[in-house]
Amino acid sequence: MPTLYHHPMSSASRFVRLILAEYGFQTDLVEEQTWEKRREFLALNPAGTLPVYVDDNMRVLSGPNVLLEFLDETHGVLKRERRLLAEDPFQRAEIRRLTEWFLLKMERDVTLPLTRERAYKLQMSAAHGGGAPDSKVLRTSRANIRQHMKYLSWLAGSRPWLAGERLSYADLAAAASISVLDYLGEIDWQETPIAKEWYQRLKSRPSFRPLLAERVRGLTPVSHYADLDF
Amino acid sequence: MPTLYHHPMSSASRFVRLILAEYGFQTDLVEEQTWEKRREFLALNPAGTLPVYVDDNMRVLSGPNVLLEFLDETHGVLKRERRLLAEDPFQRAEIRRLTEWFLLKMERDVTLPLTRERAYKLQMSAAHGGGAPDSKVLRTSRANIRQHMKYLSWLAGSRPWLAGERLSYADLAAAASISVLDYLGEIDWQETPIAKEWYQRLKSRPSFRPLLAERVRGLTPVSHYADLDF
Repeated sequence: MPTLYHHPMSSASRFVRLILAEYGFQTDLVEEQTWEKRREFLALNPAGTLPVYVDDNMRVLSGPNVLLEFLDETHGVLKRERRLLAEDPFQRAEIRRLTEWFLLKMERDVTLPLTRERAYKLQMSAAHGGGAPDSKVLRTSRANIRQHMKYLSWLAGSRPWLAGERLSYADLAAAASISVLDYLGEIDWQETPIAKEWYQRLKSRPSFRPLLAERVRGLTPVSHYADLDF
Repeated sequence: MPTLYHHPMSSASRFVRLILAEYGFQTDLVEEQTWEKRREFLALNPAGTLPVYVDDNMRVLSGPNVLLEFLDETHGVLKRERRLLAEDPFQRAEIRRLTEWFLLKMERDVTLPLTRERAYKLQMSAAHGGGAPDSKVLRTSRANIRQHMKYLSWLAGSRPWLAGERLSYADLAAAASISVLDYLGEIDWQETPIAKEWYQRLKSRPSFRPLLAERVRGLTPVSHYADLDF
C-alpha cells in the first residue's frame, strides 16, 4: 500500500488526505515531525516539507502542488463531474489561484504561525524551538484571520463552491486550513455565517471523517470540532 | 497586446518572462512596486504578488504557478520537443518539484531576503520600509546561498538539464533566481564550475537577452552580469 507522510496539524497534509479520500485511495499514514529533520525523511524530500507520498513502486511525490497535479493527471481526468479540477483552462487557473491562496498565503499569514506556536511547540524539544507560545505572533496571526475569513465568506457567498459551480481543490485547500484553525478554536463562527454554511457542507463529506476523528497528543480540540451541526 | 505586471528583481517575474520568450509571446511590460499596494493592482490580484498577466480579453492570470500550468495547457502541449513540461506524469512531477524549489524554497531562504534588503529597500519610501539593508538578514541569506548552489551543482552535474534530458521549467526557474542574485554580485562562480557551465548555456539563449539588458534604477549590476563568457 502507498504511504503518506503527514502531520495532523499540517494543512497541506490534510488537503492531500482529502483529495485521496475523495478519489477513493487507501494509504498508510506515517506521522512526521519535520523539525527533527530525519535523514531518512530528507532523503525522500530534500525540501523537508509535508506531505510526501510514496507509491507501491517506491516512487516519491512531495508537496501539495506536485500531488494535486499528479493526482489530477492520473485519476482526476477520469472522474467526470467528480473531478476536482475543471476542464476549462481559465477555470483551472482560478482553482489553482485559490488553492495557492489557502495553502501559501493564508498559511503564511495565519495557519502556520498559529499551529507552530500552539501545536508544534508542544511537541518540539527545547533544542528544536519548543516552549511557550510567542504572544506577539499569536496576536498578529489572529488579526489576520479576520481578513481571510472575509475573503472566504465573499467567495462562498458569490458562488456555489469557492472556485465555481463544482467542488474543487480550492474547497479542499480552504477546508484543510480552516479545520486546523477550528481544532485550535481560532475561528469565530458566529461572525461568519456564510463561511460556516460552506464549512458545514465540507465537514459532512465522508472524506472529512478521518480528520475529525483524529486527536493531537496533549492538545484537546475545541468542543464543537467534530460536530457536524456546530 | 497582453500586459505583464512584473518587477525586474522578482525571480517569479523573470521566470514567466523566460517562458513567454521561449514560446514566442509578445507582451507589454509594466513595472509594479508591490509594496505600494496599489488599489488597481490589488483588484487584478488580491494576493498582491507578481507576475500578473492580463490577456487581450482582460482575463487575469496571477502568479508563476498558475501561469506555468496555463501556458503549458494552452501552448506548451503543442511544442513537442520544445515543450517546457514533460509528457510523463512522474517527469512532470519532478519538473514541478524543482520549479517550486527555486521559486518557493530558495526564494524564502535566499533570493527574497537579499533582493528586499539590497534592491527593494532602495526604491521604497521610509513609510514602506525603505532604508539601509539589515546586516543580519544579509548574513543569514548569504550563508544559505552556498547550500542552494551545491544542490544546483549536483543537479546540473548528474543530468543534461536540471530535471532531466530536456530544458524545462525547472531550468528557467533556477536561472531566474540565479540571474537576480548574479545581478547583485552574490554568486561566487569560481566555487561552482558545474553550475556555471549550466548557467552559461541558459544565459546564451535568446530568451535571456532582455533580462541581461535591463537595469534597475540606482543599482549597478556586477561587471560580468551581461557577459556570456564570465
